[in-house]
Amino acid sequence: MIDQGHIAALRTILGDKGLVAEGPDMAAYQTGARYDEGRAAIILRPQTTQEVSAAVAYCVKNGIALVPQSGNTGLVSGSTPDATGAQAVLSLDRMTQRFELDLDNRSLRVDAGFRLSDVNRKLEKHGLFFPIDLGADPRLGGMLATNTGGSRFLKYGDVRRNTLGIEVVLADDEGTILDLTSDLRKNNTGIDWKHAFIGTSGAFGIITECVLNLEALPKQTATAYLVPSSSAHVMPLLRAMEERLGAYLSAFEGISRNSIVAALDHVPSLKNPFQGGNVPDYVILAEISRTWTPREGEQSLDAVLETVLAEIWETEDAPLADAFVGPAHEMWALRHALSEGVKHSGKLIAFDLSFRRGDIMAFCDRMKAEMPEAFPDVTICDFGHIGDGGVHFNLVVPKDSASASDKTFEQRLRDWMFAIAVRDFNGSFSAEHAIGRKNQAYYDLYTQQKIKDMAQGLKAITSPGALGTVCFG
Amino acid sequence: MIDQGHIAALRTILGDKGLVAEGPDMAAYQTGARYDEGRAAIILRPQTTQEVSAAVAYCVKNGIALVPQSGNTGLVSGSTPDATGAQAVLSLDRMTQRFELDLDNRSLRVDAGFRLSDVNRKLEKHGLFFPIDLGADPRLGGMLATNTGGSRFLKYGDVRRNTLGIEVVLADDEGTILDLTSDLRKNNTGIDWKHAFIGTSGAFGIITECVLNLEALPKQTATAYLVPSSSAHVMPLLRAMEERLGAYLSAFEGISRNSIVAALDHVPSLKNPFQGGNVPDYVILAEISRTWTPREGEQSLDAVLETVLAEIWETEDAPLADAFVGPAHEMWALRHALSEGVKHSGKLIAFDLSFRRGDIMAFCDRMKAEMPEAFPDVTICDFGHIGDGGVHFNLVVPKDSASASDKTFEQRLRDWMFAIAVRDFNGSFSAEHAIGRKNQAYYDLYTQQKIKDMAQGLKAITSPGALGTVCFG
Repeated sequence: MIDQGHIAALRTILGDKGLVAEGPDMAAYQTGARYDEGRAAIILRPQTTQEVSAAVAYCVKNGIALVPQSGNTGLVSGSTPDATGAQAVLSLDRMTQRFELDLDNRSLRVDAGFRLSDVNRKLEKHGLFFPIDLGADPRLGGMLATNTGGSRFLKYGDVRRNTLGIEVVLADDEGTILDLTSDLRKNNTGIDWKHAFIGTSGAFGIITECVLNLEALPKQTATAYLVPSSSAHVMPLLRAMEERLGAYLSAFEGISRNSIVAALDHVPSLKNPFQGGNVPDYVILAEISRTWTPREGEQSLDAVLETVLAEIWETEDAPLADAFVGPAHEMWALRHALSEGVKHSGKLIAFDLSFRRGDIMAFCDRMKAEMPEAFPDVTICDFGHIGDGGVHFNLVVPKDSASASDKTFEQRLRDWMFAIAVRDFNGSFSAEHAIGRKNQAYYDLYTQQKIKDMAQGLKAITSPGALGTVCFG
Repeated sequence: MIDQGHIAALRTILGDKGLVAEGPDMAAYQTGARYDEGRAAIILRPQTTQEVSAAVAYCVKNGIALVPQSGNTGLVSGSTPDATGAQAVLSLDRMTQRFELDLDNRSLRVDAGFRLSDVNRKLEKHGLFFPIDLGADPRLGGMLATNTGGSRFLKYGDVRRNTLGIEVVLADDEGTILDLTSDLRKNNTGIDWKHAFIGTSGAFGIITECVLNLEALPKQTATAYLVPSSSAHVMPLLRAMEERLGAYLSAFEGISRNSIVAALDHVPSLKNPFQGGNVPDYVILAEISRTWTPREGEQSLDAVLETVLAEIWETEDAPLADAFVGPAHEMWALRHALSEGVKHSGKLIAFDLSFRRGDIMAFCDRMKAEMPEAFPDVTICDFGHIGDGGVHFNLVVPKDSASASDKTFEQRLRDWMFAIAVRDFNGSFSAEHAIGRKNQAYYDLYTQQKIKDMAQGLKAITSPGALGTVCFG
């Protein structure tokens, strides 16, 4: 436990602003974005890497367990303290000093405490952006620690792909600062150690700084809603689009009828874009984009998309039942309202799965077939990133149902569904949220022993101190 | 040393075809693509992962050091045995059975012994390719172990970015088979262990199978030679191109006059594309590409490129001194002849460096300024991938010069240049060839102690047996 002596020592290291030991300011650090309420012994808010290092060293030497916290927008209990009141939260929220743009290198060296929206606002005037498109607004450190993907993964990839280098503080007696920063895109002079820290929930070290790859901001986009002829036609449709559009294609999002209805019901500002208000069973939001405005003699991007869709319309296997090109902001507004809509439809149990692309619809079809018998209360409101295999598999039960008040319900549902997703489909039980307390048991269950042993070995040679909510043991 | 008993035991494991113990067939496995002649105790040629595992387990238990060898096209002595005659070469050249294309997932599950050219020939009819563009024709296992980049890195990234999963055999007593294969693009359920084996020269395990991301084959390309107004204008030119072309831009290669002259002198089939035969000091080969053929009302890709170049021509900072769009195959023919031309110009000492993009020309300028005094015999014939920071820094001395016969010359030159590249420019001494015997000393010199310790720790928990030419200690 943390006594007054420890608090005084940590105050000396971090200063008054660097510490929250009591009072109402504690709440934000103890409460998760959607779930969780934990209790922290203390909140540490260092402003520099040196301060992180000193604080971490102190905690490791004194047996104080640390939970690194970034934007605290995650959904798997990865950044909040548990209920014991013994853990110290180390927040990155004051790590927002360094912001060094290298235009020639198309890269940015930046402290890990910046929010994604702040980064992209600062980059806009240079025609550049960090191309990760998310519903939430996390801080960079957490984005790296969970390796987020988002809606434009198909074109730009995940955080890992767009990270050139990182600086890490290890949880050892010295609070070792590991300089893995690099502005290089090509460098094969040993192990690329940054990959041990990306996507591993902070269990092996705290990311304090990063060097990010930037991309040219699209200057023109065109979007369409596509209605596939059946769930079996989703993949032929995607393949036809990719074949014709290549790197133009920047999103291919699948949305189920239930999700759309939930959004329309609960987000009043939306308008129903479908003819006669009839929402189809499944809709694809496709986006194409390019970095310049059309020149003389050049088709508009809407026209390009219409031409391509007309071609696909006429192909033999007829993957399209309907399609219409429309204004990007309206089409995305509906897409971005899905989470909100689903959340207000009842008690929500959210899953973040991924599959081979060809298996997504098969998994969804199987769930639709088996759910009514296995869990009769459940309404499936799935949507996801078909282009990269990710699916936000959201399940809703009425708030006044027996299931909603059954304490074992969520666990049983999760166990049942993960077994099918992981064992029968070779899918992932955490596509882009990494592992927190919520997923720990499934890591333990589904990871081969040799891999667990290696993870334990890695832990020993990086951060032997108690770090993160995650045990890769 | 390997005695007859060992040979008999390994023959039992691998069969007659799986073993070369003597005779003229040994030569190809002992000799490097450009340098090196080593001596192997035996060549092991397993055909399946099970055979790799059994052979590796036998060797580890009996203290036989293994050198994994793939296409043997590397240039850093990473895949050939040393001169002792004590090492066994484990070749992947018979690992060419599995080839499973997943069109929906746009991925390929394939044995590591396939050559890049074979893979892409088989994929062509599906309109797909593995988008790594190299001069050499390596096998996949070696491409992963060195994390090759190539000429289209700017658009498609390196091998790491295009690898979804791998299967690895560890050099331990059991020859443990580590199943890290995955068809998923998104999966953050623990450490992504594949990154410990990609780009690490086989020191931590032997890659036997991989799952690769595929991309849509471009159906149309346009190329141009651009002459920048000065070396200081190369970056403004690149930035202007990226801003306007985004993901269209698939190559931005820089070529020095000396390299072009060497190619024209020594490759008779080439024609001089420059007006009056006057080769400029520095030339950029730019390529744009897209995955469809132009439709009615759409500009040809040549016209797009011409329009963009005209725009850049008229910008205030005038980065362009000259530019002409021309036939892709001719323009690339010159680019691809550079290595050959340089090789025949004298004794060649080749370097594969990388820098922040903005530092490439500054490094080249500094070399041009200092080389005449430091190493008067040397002619600099550099070319490279400006778009990703990589530069093939080739140095040539006359074959009859004092330097060519001075045994310490190459070492002194290498030490001097690496010190400037790594210390003064924070560059990399091996952009895409990884570490072999040739680079080992520089890993030892330029790697921080903590990183070396971690590498040693990783070695202990993966492949404690003697594996590879590389010591990450």
